[in-house]
Amino acid sequence: MSAAVDAQHSRVPVPVSALRSFDAMWAELSPIGRDTSTGGYRRYAWTREDHTLRDWFAGQCAARGLDLALDRAGNQWAWWGDPDAVRADGSTGGVAVGSHLDSVPDGGAFDGPLGVVSALAAVDALRASGLRPRVPLAVACFGDEEGARFGIACAGSRLITGALTADRALGLTDADGTTMAEAIAAAGRDPASLGDDPETLARVHTFVELHVEQGRALADPDAYDQSSSAVGVGSDIWPHGRWRIDVPGTANHAGTTRLEDRDDAMLKHAALVLATRAAATRHGCVATIGKVRVEPGGVNAIASHVATWLDARGADEAAVRRVVADLGGAAAPHGATVTEESWTGTTRFDPELVERLATTLGPDTPVLGTGAGHDAGILATQGISSAMLFVRNPTGVSHSPVEHADPADCHAGVAALTAVLTDLSEAAS
Amino acid sequence: MSAAVDAQHSRVPVPVSALRSFDAMWAELSPIGRDTSTGGYRRYAWTREDHTLRDWFAGQCAARGLDLALDRAGNQWAWWGDPDAVRADGSTGGVAVGSHLDSVPDGGAFDGPLGVVSALAAVDALRASGLRPRVPLAVACFGDEEGARFGIACAGSRLITGALTADRALGLTDADGTTMAEAIAAAGRDPASLGDDPETLARVHTFVELHVEQGRALADPDAYDQSSSAVGVGSDIWPHGRWRIDVPGTANHAGTTRLEDRDDAMLKHAALVLATRAAATRHGCVATIGKVRVEPGGVNAIASHVATWLDARGADEAAVRRVVADLGGAAAPHGATVTEESWTGTTRFDPELVERLATTLGPDTPVLGTGAGHDAGILATQGISSAMLFVRNPTGVSHSPVEHADPADCHAGVAALTAVLTDLSEAAS
Repeated sequence: MSAAVDAQHSRVPVPVSALRSFDAMWAELSPIGRDTSTGGYRRYAWTREDHTLRDWFAGQCAARGLDLALDRAGNQWAWWGDPDAVRADGSTGGVAVGSHLDSVPDGGAFDGPLGVVSALAAVDALRASGLRPRVPLAVACFGDEEGARFGIACAGSRLITGALTADRALGLTDADGTTMAEAIAAAGRDPASLGDDPETLARVHTFVELHVEQGRALADPDAYDQSSSAVGVGSDIWPHGRWRIDVPGTANHAGTTRLEDRDDAMLKHAALVLATRAAATRHGCVATIGKVRVEPGGVNAIASHVATWLDARGADEAAVRRVVADLGGAAAPHGATVTEESWTGTTRFDPELVERLATTLGPDTPVLGTGAGHDAGILATQGISSAMLFVRNPTGVSHSPVEHADPADCHAGVAALTAVLTDLSEAAS
Repeated sequence: MSAAVDAQHSRVPVPVSALRSFDAMWAELSPIGRDTSTGGYRRYAWTREDHTLRDWFAGQCAARGLDLALDRAGNQWAWWGDPDAVRADGSTGGVAVGSHLDSVPDGGAFDGPLGVVSALAAVDALRASGLRPRVPLAVACFGDEEGARFGIACAGSRLITGALTADRALGLTDADGTTMAEAIAAAGRDPASLGDDPETLARVHTFVELHVEQGRALADPDAYDQSSSAVGVGSDIWPHGRWRIDVPGTANHAGTTRLEDRDDAMLKHAALVLATRAAATRHGCVATIGKVRVEPGGVNAIASHVATWLDARGADEAAVRRVVADLGGAAAPHGATVTEESWTGTTRFDPELVERLATTLGPDTPVLGTGAGHDAGILATQGISSAMLFVRNPTGVSHSPVEHADPADCHAGVAALTAVLTDLSEAAS
């Protein structure tokens, strides 16, 4: 196993002890918050399961002699070295690696935990090799990344950057009507402490998040050489947006209205779903219609209105805009409208860091964008030098109990993160 | 106005007094149960509005000296003559005309009331012309025809025929959880009296229901001569059925799953909606998909399952079956299934009666089937000689506040029903 890892990431051989440490931590996490009927994970913010995971992380950090700090959103930062030290050259700030431990409803084991466990194993590898970092290092464990309970993704990182205000966050409610303020208080924390946290952000010069890939670009033999694509470097988060499509029709009797007299919103909706797919294919983007509301919604009533939502993303902003424009063009003759509900342009990770990671990992390392949001993307918007590592996902399935990464690829991820952390910790940043 | 009517239905000139009676009754009914914001009617079974309408009908019958009888479902029968008399030739039973006064949610003014008011006006016309019927005549007002409150259409006629058992009916609940038993009791009637009523059915030899057309066949200049199509004769109720379509997919992330890796139930659903329409066109039927459920239903989740329902009807049973078979053929490659939930074959009205009505109304009278269910169809299944008259609907829209029939066409309906009733009442049936 480690021999194969060494072959790909030859610059830093990974001690077998670090891989064993990875396996042991993975086994410990496996039962926490797992639903035995679906096999999926239900690890939601500020629940008992969340508390158990936070305790587990704190215990791992204590066992490694790392100094645990909680920021004003409750994100956990475990430091190796003084994060507030000013170096001889006047520089400050450290290198953080990590991800999150919470999950979507019935999520998989990898989305989040793979990055946290790999980060701890990489620290073990650095320790085993006797490395003494020239800059402080941290393992970060973000809270509420999925937003499964309160509806806002990356809530932990958005809070400390101020992108999500404490006022708004505390008032968010879960499906049972519990506010985030109540949930935080029930978890034994003071909701009044929630807020932006520039001091914590100032400690972080560089952030690298390792994550299971949520598509199968790395697994595609036509895209990448499979011998060198167990791990790729994330270069950016694709631009993405959400649009509401309103399709009008005329309610009428399903039994007595002739086909030629119908104004059927369902037919127009069907045509627009297919037009959306064609536009996405044409412009090299992804586009999804996954939510539909039909009025009046009766079996024997011709639809008078169909509302659907488009989720569109792609590597190129202009291409995503062209998908939406094409959909608008297809919608207009039907009297349908396309209304933008949200838009986020490309989030570019630090190009120098991306290049550095790719160089560290060796020739032919894939460099790829992603259509999913991550805490690393939030930090990148704050001037923190950020990037990601993706571990190959053979099926591409994520947010599902069957989400998977091969053990050998997970170990390759540990090796890659070890190599990256070694390189960055040696730098006089 | 009456001159125009006379021109079309020359066999029985309609006294202007009967048309004035029609107009007066129409004006009286207009405000009852009308929602002032939508302009639509909300006349549901066993409500205050329903009670007001029943009272109104009873008052109209009393004013005409008709003998009102309630059957075991609460349907109102107003007799002119003894319905239980045995004639010299040993024959029994009378001729009933009528329809219903209840509505769908935000329904139009015509669906139901046009048949009741026209029946009362036809009685006025017969009275004014001095006719003495040789058989007993009745004006019938059925209850709960739309099933808007408890979900079963033609509940009044189904109950007296036994097609709907009292046990099942009394346990039906409305949107507030009120049972039909509670609603009937609250309306001052004994729920224990509900049940099949062979005695009432035995009184009815012939039933003719006048109804606004719910399509625009009569209004189509390519189908019928507009000078002779204010009123048509209904020959049958089309075969119709309901099928559930289950379309499988695979849940996945909308941002990270490449188009070529997707198994998107929404795309297949869209293709099947269009295939259904094409099949209906090909086989000369109507087919409607008006209800959709999507799982998981999130904006950023590829659909893992879409369930839709097909309502298909047509003049020919084999043609409707071909539509469903074609849909099944289109569904199979997608792994989708088509499951029959209900099927009702053609309900044929009495062919001799249909022919007699068409002859009475004169040459070029349209004879047409309908895709909608009616109390006349329920009675037809019980050996009662039944048929319908349809009054032209210029837009074809029904079950909507904008449902409409021109006043001149409504008067033509009164004239037609007068002619029919005159003919049938003169017969030694």
